[in-house]
Amino acid sequence: MTDALNALKIAEGYITLWNERNDARRRDLLASNWTGDARYVDPLAASEGPAAIDAMIAGVQQRFPDFEFALLGTPDSHGQFVRFQWGLGPRGGDNPIKGTDFVVTEGGRIRSVTGFLDQVPS
Amino acid sequence: MTDALNALKIAEGYITLWNERNDARRRDLLASNWTGDARYVDPLAASEGPAAIDAMIAGVQQRFPDFEFALLGTPDSHGQFVRFQWGLGPRGGDNPIKGTDFVVTEGGRIRSVTGFLDQVPS
Repeated sequence: MTDALNALKIAEGYITLWNERNDARRRDLLASNWTGDARYVDPLAASEGPAAIDAMIAGVQQRFPDFEFALLGTPDSHGQFVRFQWGLGPRGGDNPIKGTDFVVTEGGRIRSVTGFLDQVPS
Repeated sequence: MTDALNALKIAEGYITLWNERNDARRRDLLASNWTGDARYVDPLAASEGPAAIDAMIAGVQQRFPDFEFALLGTPDSHGQFVRFQWGLGPRGGDNPIKGTDFVVTEGGRIRSVTGFLDQVPS
């Protein structure tokens, strides 16, 4: 795959994971698309390993039951590095929250995610 | 230091390094502000260790003798992670080239930089 196609696959799979509210399917996605030692960190949370990342995502889903993530713009990548912007907001509505995630991949799977917030409601 | 102050120090030191054309001073900045195992990667180049990073910067300076880097906007950080946008262009002029760098720090020094291009001349 080209870098661009791989970046799109990684970014879309990542957004799908955050929006998947079926526990079993979410864990399957983590097992298929993330490495066993994957870690996640953003300004509000840090998780190591698929089980902790799964629990973190489930927690965010419970806190924002009507919110959905969307991929914004075109993911960008070189080598094993991918970055993309996402929005979070009410399903089908605006995205009051936006962020940029910076991903390191390994063998086509997500090994680490470092997230930054680009926009939060004032 | 707060995250914000630390991010500003890291980002400003990074820009100063790229603009420093005195070889000895550039190596001093690398020795003081980067770890001994620091690595740098962007879509065009990859370097490991201060000596290789120094040679890479010197090469870019020779290729763009009248260009200067500038910090754009406000650096953002949490924990050991920093990101900021920079511009590159003729000294005192516009910045036809822009990028965003993601930095991992360790003990207040730069341990890794992963860069992405935000804008390049068409």
